[in-house]
Amino acid sequence: KMSPKITTELLKQLRQVMKSPKYVQEPVQAYIVPSGDAHQSEYIAPCDCRRAFISGFDGSAGTAIITEQHAAMWTDGRYFLQAANQMDNNWTLMKMGLKDTPTQEDWLVSVLPEGSKVGVDPFIIPADQWKRMSKVLRSAGHDLVPIKENLIDTIWTDCPQRPCKPLITLDLNYTGVSWRDKIVALRSKMAERKVLWFVVTALDEVAWLFNLRGSDVEYNPVFFAYAVIGMNTIRLFIDGDRMTDPAVREHLQLDSTLEPEFKIQVMPYGSILTELQAVGASLSPKEKVWLSDKASYALTEAVPKAYQYLTPYTPICIAKAVKNASETEGMRRAHVKDAVALCELFNWLEKEVPKGTVTEITAADKAEEFRSQQKDFVELSFATISSTGPNGAIIHYKPVPETNRTLSVNEIYLLDSGAQYKDGTTDVTRTMHFGTPSAYEKECFTYVLKGHIAVSAAIFPNGTKGHLLDSFARSALWDCGLDYLHGTGHGVGSFLNVHEGPCGISYKTFADEPLEAGMIVSDEPGYYEDGSFGIRIENVVLVIPAETKYNFKNRGSLTFEPLTLVPIQTKMIDVSLLTQKELNWVNDYHQKCREVIGAELERQGRLEALQWLIRETEPLIRVQ
Amino acid sequence: KMSPKITTELLKQLRQVMKSPKYVQEPVQAYIVPSGDAHQSEYIAPCDCRRAFISGFDGSAGTAIITEQHAAMWTDGRYFLQAANQMDNNWTLMKMGLKDTPTQEDWLVSVLPEGSKVGVDPFIIPADQWKRMSKVLRSAGHDLVPIKENLIDTIWTDCPQRPCKPLITLDLNYTGVSWRDKIVALRSKMAERKVLWFVVTALDEVAWLFNLRGSDVEYNPVFFAYAVIGMNTIRLFIDGDRMTDPAVREHLQLDSTLEPEFKIQVMPYGSILTELQAVGASLSPKEKVWLSDKASYALTEAVPKAYQYLTPYTPICIAKAVKNASETEGMRRAHVKDAVALCELFNWLEKEVPKGTVTEITAADKAEEFRSQQKDFVELSFATISSTGPNGAIIHYKPVPETNRTLSVNEIYLLDSGAQYKDGTTDVTRTMHFGTPSAYEKECFTYVLKGHIAVSAAIFPNGTKGHLLDSFARSALWDCGLDYLHGTGHGVGSFLNVHEGPCGISYKTFADEPLEAGMIVSDEPGYYEDGSFGIRIENVVLVIPAETKYNFKNRGSLTFEPLTLVPIQTKMIDVSLLTQKELNWVNDYHQKCREVIGAELERQGRLEALQWLIRETEPLIRVQ
Repeated sequence: KMSPKITTELLKQLRQVMKSPKYVQEPVQAYIVPSGDAHQSEYIAPCDCRRAFISGFDGSAGTAIITEQHAAMWTDGRYFLQAANQMDNNWTLMKMGLKDTPTQEDWLVSVLPEGSKVGVDPFIIPADQWKRMSKVLRSAGHDLVPIKENLIDTIWTDCPQRPCKPLITLDLNYTGVSWRDKIVALRSKMAERKVLWFVVTALDEVAWLFNLRGSDVEYNPVFFAYAVIGMNTIRLFIDGDRMTDPAVREHLQLDSTLEPEFKIQVMPYGSILTELQAVGASLSPKEKVWLSDKASYALTEAVPKAYQYLTPYTPICIAKAVKNASETEGMRRAHVKDAVALCELFNWLEKEVPKGTVTEITAADKAEEFRSQQKDFVELSFATISSTGPNGAIIHYKPVPETNRTLSVNEIYLLDSGAQYKDGTTDVTRTMHFGTPSAYEKECFTYVLKGHIAVSAAIFPNGTKGHLLDSFARSALWDCGLDYLHGTGHGVGSFLNVHEGPCGISYKTFADEPLEAGMIVSDEPGYYEDGSFGIRIENVVLVIPAETKYNFKNRGSLTFEPLTLVPIQTKMIDVSLLTQKELNWVNDYHQKCREVIGAELERQGRLEALQWLIRETEPLIRVQ
Repeated sequence: KMSPKITTELLKQLRQVMKSPKYVQEPVQAYIVPSGDAHQSEYIAPCDCRRAFISGFDGSAGTAIITEQHAAMWTDGRYFLQAANQMDNNWTLMKMGLKDTPTQEDWLVSVLPEGSKVGVDPFIIPADQWKRMSKVLRSAGHDLVPIKENLIDTIWTDCPQRPCKPLITLDLNYTGVSWRDKIVALRSKMAERKVLWFVVTALDEVAWLFNLRGSDVEYNPVFFAYAVIGMNTIRLFIDGDRMTDPAVREHLQLDSTLEPEFKIQVMPYGSILTELQAVGASLSPKEKVWLSDKASYALTEAVPKAYQYLTPYTPICIAKAVKNASETEGMRRAHVKDAVALCELFNWLEKEVPKGTVTEITAADKAEEFRSQQKDFVELSFATISSTGPNGAIIHYKPVPETNRTLSVNEIYLLDSGAQYKDGTTDVTRTMHFGTPSAYEKECFTYVLKGHIAVSAAIFPNGTKGHLLDSFARSALWDCGLDYLHGTGHGVGSFLNVHEGPCGISYKTFADEPLEAGMIVSDEPGYYEDGSFGIRIENVVLVIPAETKYNFKNRGSLTFEPLTLVPIQTKMIDVSLLTQKELNWVNDYHQKCREVIGAELERQGRLEALQWLIRETEPLIRVQ
């Protein structure tokens, strides 16, 4: 068992700076440490892991609040076990999604002395969250105040440097659309909404817009930058000598004679706030600046309120989600390569696991090794979840030496992994047994599979939001009293973040954008039993038009095509629980895996893995 | 075809008063006419039908906005056809839920000249709606202004009187809980939230709280009243001589020596605003007044903002939704009586329709006649939807002489009807064919039936919100490209409104309260083909605990038990499209109808209807 981080001394130091006139104008009685960075990224650079530094909990989602008396951590169902393991007794775990868990605001109101000040770094807190918290706190007589200097950074003596790695340029074969055409499309959306300026704050949106990639944040091929797009100007805020790279200069046409509206002005990363304040000060009535409502409070407030135009999803976020033909073909290629790597891995595991020499960590390393052999491999797309037995029930588990288990023929093994290739991003989960699964394990696996198929094969009208499909994934589990405490799917970027908006499949959101042909999401129901095992079956799927017998109101219908083509272990399936339609789905899917991945395995001369694939894709037969 | 109301002259008059210093301090460039009354009721008294008066459109939902140049009506998919038929060319229909339909605010901004004033009656507009509209209008340079005198009333010369009918008292056999105990429970909820006052504004909440019923509004057994509950005081605002009725005085213990905190002070209906202003003025910091955020802007503003405590659902709304044992038993009795009436009706229709003498209106009248023969019958619970052929596609159709069609053996007949009995409220839809349905009609009916069963037989965890079940009702339709443009279910009151919150089954809401055992909702998917037919199958169902094989996290599971026990016409079912599970559901349901309703038909000596029931509940057999 992992030992928790001892935080007594750190909390003491933090509580001191919370009162220190050196850092705060007035003492704050509470300090909020959100999860994200100044770009509201989900995955963050080491220098931005402030919440992990102060608490020990390093999951991808969680907010810490420290008061004079308490330290509390809000996180969701994926991380209840992990957070409980990583935090010491100074911390109270607030399990989000459970009925009796207070919101951060309500909790603050319940514990704070009258007239308290609650501090937060205005660059780290999204504007919409600031607004919500500030309102509740104010109505209870407290104040949310921006603290310019990040208080964690003041006590984080060995805080790492902000990374500043070289950039990769992507040509039209990968992106399908030039950055100039993306700027033109963005400006036409701006004209539609009558806004004069657009501020690009999300790192993946900057990367997508300019057809550039970086490696400042592990797993996400992005780089620290902002952009401010006017109707006639383009300003890119980026640090380091990255703009001296001739390939980048050529790609961005920095040295060419260009129409002025496509001339990119390069500015220091840190100058965004003053530049934006200057833009704000220059506006006349009715002139608007478009920002995401998840942009930081600091940047949002740089623009006077009357000139702010805030939306939950930016036009870049929506355009980025609908993949064009070049991106879709790239994603297909990436998934074929990824499947080749996993066939090699599973073939290797089948031989090695019975010897008792494979651990969660070595299995994860081997997966990375096979992936890295594929063309255009860049890095993994997230920390590999390689978990066996009880570790599988820790939904976003990452093996570390303290928890590392040896794979065996007696336990279920869950591998959730993916990679960044220059042509696409993958994310796949397979759950396997290398011995003989119990009837109960097979039963649970089959319910999860039924849910996976229910989503993957769903036909639904154009304009349907993904959250309306979430219950399909749960129905078979619900029928026997089971469920899982996470959403069913997330948007997937194209050689970009493995989690992206604005679409997804989850009971937790209502504000997702409707699914459209060309969008790419994951389909990943699961079932987890604390202390014993975890099951998840995940494919990345592409939204495609569906042929239907009728066509109500001419709306047209959609369905999904799996991009992931990795066999689902038939040994784990209780065929008697499948309908004929579900059985046919499995057999058709395996037929496609055999054809498409088989051809590539053969081309790469990986004949042993090919034999494994052929074995694993034998059609299921119903025993009468 | 119905002829539309000619509104040219009325609109001219309204536009005059919109500028008349007699009624408005400054001219208003737009005037909003919401659907509801001062209690935000869905069903309203004739004197409150202002939107119908000005436009001709008399559906249950719709908002009219009149500007100097335009007159526009927003309504939802249930009413697109009806509104188009009832309104003349002065009106533009705004189809809510379609992609290109602007919101009322956005439309106003697009048509109004700079710096406009938009007027509305502050008693009629809910506070949450005021807030939303006011914000958008203000940010576009316009103003939403309260107009004290209702402008429609100023031009409505023959406006009917506000009704003031006698009250019915309900004893413990019906309500299960005394009004005193309900006050105690309410005060404990108030103490939990630290509020000192609670304002009851919804008519059904007043009726439920005091165990009283009225008949001021057709179909809804409610009466015009407000209540203000303090920790030690009860104020009931109600007009007329209703409080002189000895039974009412006795029921409310108005003449007894009571502990002061249960002493009801009766005050005039019209004095609520000044009384509430007095309460507001008496408050000290931290003392709060609890109102629904759907209470009128006028009442909400009577309390200074700092003292307002607004929630989407009141504790009365939530308590009212969870029926106790007495209420549930009452609902069961009401549904048995209702089924008896419908068996009589359908038996009669089968004999009479082939003669060509039955119309939509006479069928509806006959349904009411049979219902009125049942014990404790009070009135219908809504205007009967009796529709054949193309009229069936008008989702909330009500037959009138101009549209009345004769039932025939060639067209589908849809009957959506229900009643108020002193022990419960019913709402049931059956779709029938009195000749030979086409294969296509049977196919569509069977998809709707599959959706009905998918919801009715669904098993789901405790705490699940109804909106998560909506897609289950659509899945079979979606599979072949079909759908319906309305929600799947609504809460049903216990001898109260046939539509009530806070639960329901609809893709359109996210803010519904979780389903709990004891809640009662309708399950009513449909399919409608404009110009040809409509299909809907509706039962009222009770949320009950479900037995499941496993019990994840000890959460427990729920399912539904149909309270409606009326045969579903098997002639309309294409058995080959049903799964074995669905077939069993139909046969089990019909077996229960036969047993429960058969016994009651026999007891009432209705032997011909009993024969009909037995015929209609023959088990379905799958033809191999």
